[in-house]
Amino acid sequence: MSNAKHHNGLKPWQNKMHEVIFEAETKAGKLFDIVLLIVIVISIVVVMLESVPSLSRNYGSELFVLEWIITIVFSLEYIARILCVGNPMKYIFSFYGVVDFLSIIPTYIGIFVTGTHSLSVIRSLRLLRIFRILKLSQFLGEANLLIRSLKASRAKIIVFLVFVLSLTFILGSLMYIVESPEAGFTSIPRSVYWAIVTLTTVGYGDIKPDTDLGQFIASIIMLTGYAIIAVPTGIISAEIARNDNQHKPSTQVCPNCSQEGHEHDAVFCKYCGGKL
Amino acid sequence: MSNAKHHNGLKPWQNKMHEVIFEAETKAGKLFDIVLLIVIVISIVVVMLESVPSLSRNYGSELFVLEWIITIVFSLEYIARILCVGNPMKYIFSFYGVVDFLSIIPTYIGIFVTGTHSLSVIRSLRLLRIFRILKLSQFLGEANLLIRSLKASRAKIIVFLVFVLSLTFILGSLMYIVESPEAGFTSIPRSVYWAIVTLTTVGYGDIKPDTDLGQFIASIIMLTGYAIIAVPTGIISAEIARNDNQHKPSTQVCPNCSQEGHEHDAVFCKYCGGKL
Amino acid sequence: MSNAKHHNGLKPWQNKMHEVIFEAETKAGKLFDIVLLIVIVISIVVVMLESVPSLSRNYGSELFVLEWIITIVFSLEYIARILCVGNPMKYIFSFYGVVDFLSIIPTYIGIFVTGTHSLSVIRSLRLLRIFRILKLSQFLGEANLLIRSLKASRAKIIVFLVFVLSLTFILGSLMYIVESPEAGFTSIPRSVYWAIVTLTTVGYGDIKPDTDLGQFIASIIMLTGYAIIAVPTGIISAEIARNDNQHKPSTQVCPNCSQEGHEHDAVFCKYCGGKL
Amino acid sequence: MSNAKHHNGLKPWQNKMHEVIFEAETKAGKLFDIVLLIVIVISIVVVMLESVPSLSRNYGSELFVLEWIITIVFSLEYIARILCVGNPMKYIFSFYGVVDFLSIIPTYIGIFVTGTHSLSVIRSLRLLRIFRILKLSQFLGEANLLIRSLKASRAKIIVFLVFVLSLTFILGSLMYIVESPEAGFTSIPRSVYWAIVTLTTVGYGDIKPDTDLGQFIASIIMLTGYAIIAVPTGIISAEIARNDNQHKPSTQVCPNCSQEGHEHDAVFCKYCGGKL
Repeated sequence: MSNAKHHNGLKPWQNKMHEVIFEAETKAGKLFDIVLLIVIVISIVVVMLESVPSLSRNYGSELFVLEWIITIVFSLEYIARILCVGNPMKYIFSFYGVVDFLSIIPTYIGIFVTGTHSLSVIRSLRLLRIFRILKLSQFLGEANLLIRSLKASRAKIIVFLVFVLSLTFILGSLMYIVESPEAGFTSIPRSVYWAIVTLTTVGYGDIKPDTDLGQFIASIIMLTGYAIIAVPTGIISAEIARNDNQHKPSTQVCPNCSQEGHEHDAVFCKYCGGKL
Repeated sequence: MSNAKHHNGLKPWQNKMHEVIFEAETKAGKLFDIVLLIVIVISIVVVMLESVPSLSRNYGSELFVLEWIITIVFSLEYIARILCVGNPMKYIFSFYGVVDFLSIIPTYIGIFVTGTHSLSVIRSLRLLRIFRILKLSQFLGEANLLIRSLKASRAKIIVFLVFVLSLTFILGSLMYIVESPEAGFTSIPRSVYWAIVTLTTVGYGDIKPDTDLGQFIASIIMLTGYAIIAVPTGIISAEIARNDNQHKPSTQVCPNCSQEGHEHDAVFCKYCGGKL
Repeated sequence: MSNAKHHNGLKPWQNKMHEVIFEAETKAGKLFDIVLLIVIVISIVVVMLESVPSLSRNYGSELFVLEWIITIVFSLEYIARILCVGNPMKYIFSFYGVVDFLSIIPTYIGIFVTGTHSLSVIRSLRLLRIFRILKLSQFLGEANLLIRSLKASRAKIIVFLVFVLSLTFILGSLMYIVESPEAGFTSIPRSVYWAIVTLTTVGYGDIKPDTDLGQFIASIIMLTGYAIIAVPTGIISAEIARNDNQHKPSTQVCPNCSQEGHEHDAVFCKYCGGKL
Repeated sequence: MSNAKHHNGLKPWQNKMHEVIFEAETKAGKLFDIVLLIVIVISIVVVMLESVPSLSRNYGSELFVLEWIITIVFSLEYIARILCVGNPMKYIFSFYGVVDFLSIIPTYIGIFVTGTHSLSVIRSLRLLRIFRILKLSQFLGEANLLIRSLKASRAKIIVFLVFVLSLTFILGSLMYIVESPEAGFTSIPRSVYWAIVTLTTVGYGDIKPDTDLGQFIASIIMLTGYAIIAVPTGIISAEIARNDNQHKPSTQVCPNCSQEGHEHDAVFCKYCGGKL
């Protein structure tokens, strides 16, 4: 199968390498993905540990060495990816190409510039590379189903979010009048922030109503937030139930026109009219 | 199409204007809606920024000028709307007519009266004008579906809310006996407020049980709140699944055996094999 | 219709009264229910206001008079209910009979005993009388549907709650070892309380992990709580979707055996085999 | 029935005992399970009460005696289980065998070693034994349905969790740059912890954004968390609806036309009218 789809204009070693690095159909390709996955997770752990003051003080040099090993591994991988694609520019400016570049560049810049606190955090984007594992067959279908369901219900979700944001804005403005700045309602943006914290049932408790009227309005916001969470849930549930491949009775194939997708109670093929 | 539906008793320029301002079927109508949408968002941002003490101190005059520009734009639009409808009174006292009026009047009153803190917040209602964008075709169907689903499950949701409010009242009263005023349970209304905060899983933490019995009752309220959120969700999910047009089989009827219930992609009747 | 169902052994005036007080089919019966609903709501508001220290100090006597008027109205209603039922004992010891009695007795006891703080809160049970309005036809079906759905999924919900409680107990015990008493984890019951507060996403913030390991375990509890809320929701959703009368194609009646409940695509009656 | 399935190589008394201890089909077996359930619950309560400082100080000796009674009961049960299974090693190293062993050993170790605070908490694992009651017939089907639904949607839930964890990591890193250590964002792990607390809508309030930009990003996380909870719910709902046995048509096949998909209450085939 892998022999059948030669990439035009690529040399055999490039094809071979492309198969290992970019695909997950062969054994070597799967192994490469799993090794990469492990390195990504380690690199993320290193980024996290470096940010902990006590650890970076005591194990700074160990983490520094580990960071450079990971950066060199990622750099080699980046070069290999460029070498084995037919159109390097297309890869470099693709989403994953940019992520791959941002994963390695902060460490190199760190040589010349010191105190690159914010810069080193960019390496967190390495995590995005993890989504490459979705190529692994058992997750591909599931991820596609979820993405398809979210896409199909996009318009409904926008309508819902516009409604929720309007509600938080109007109720936040109302609370700005009702409550005093002492309770934390110092401006409309802050009151809207409070309304979002309350409606989404997060409830930090740093800003909270003190007056009776304020608590009454807050109760209404809470009950509203508690009840309307049903709306996105209902939207996505209905969408997933519809999109779910397993739900469709797709095993029946028309013996006449070979088309699938017939319902359970179908007697005749709905495409060609042949008896099933 | 737009030629076909002349508004009775309206002059051609009124018809033209009505099409642009009130409808979204023509290119000019869509453009008008999008421009209006942007102005509304800017006006909302201005209202928010004005309420921030530090900003209103430093950029007070800039925000004042911006506010007046927006008010004049909205005023012109308001006059235009009155001019191009057949029955101005009906528009003025309609929901959107009142909202349009309340969007502009606080700025004018501000000339004569000073210290109109609360009054200026009324301008927040400008946000409601945003729902006019729902006219845009891709959202209309979705919004209708959501509203239809909520309307259809109205009676169920009222029953559920009566149950939830009764629960919070009775458990709040119980906590008023069990817990001391020191823990924040100073009166039944405040205890009920706490029960709502807890049941909806908001959990500010300003009022919280201190005694063992109180924490035990609180645990029951939390688990109840955690479990019964399933009820509105189930109601709305079932409703959306039923109302969703795409989920319904097409309205096609087999010309041969007159049976319905065919899928949208069906070419032949699944019951008799006749061509649809 | 109301003539057809005479209650055995009851005099005509008793039947008439029973119709008004216990039923909601006649105009008078509906009116009675609505008036009662209003009185119940007022009585609840009085109970709430009495518990507010500042109000009970200033308006104590007004609230006292109002309370006695309500008590006398409820007492008369209670006597009327006893008079017009065939078997008074059965009513008195029924759920609503006990609630009706508990609604009025605390006020009478208050004459002889003073400082009946806890006792007066029993009057909160008046709220339960509100569920009598469910007799009103538009809510009856909806309430039945919800109760039927909850009953049908009772066994599933018990299994789920046993699982959730076990999880909170084991994770609470674990946190009791990991975290110090200073962070609030003073005993296993308190740690379990914290686990419930966290799993249900309430999150008061009075007890919270301080150590890294504790925060890691807490993160797992939160994500678990966030994910498994899907389980009761899924249970109830599936149940409501199945139980929903409108979902069932119950309008078709077999012309042969007059039975309902046929599916949309049924050609023959599934009970008697007659053609539909 | 119990006579029919003799365990190979087991003596009659072993078979008898196995039936009582491991099964729940006979009356004695059910009684044994219920008694065991009560003892487990008591033992859990004892573990909890022992951890409360005030109780363990005042009632230490009573709890000590109770603990030893429970341990001896559990020990006898453990020995009985080993005696009546054909392959004791298989039971001892099975999940429940290990749990049974860990339920009793901490008390025995406590004789020789003092101050075994952490060790005694291991007894919390006794709670896991409670899942044996799932053998009781009315719960078995429901538990299986829930487990089957969760297993079937495992891949989808992993994809969802990878997405959620990536989101919390990237937003947590972002907040680490935006917010100061004073607000609690002292390191990336702590910021990620905050992101999880916020996304899952727990919201302790110990770490919370103070800057405008931080509160803006926090609002986005909250709204995201509020909206995407719909995803696991939708997954599980669709799965439960599909797996629910009662929902599925019966497995009956029409003897006349061989068609399936009949409801459980069907007497005649809905397609051809033949008797089922």
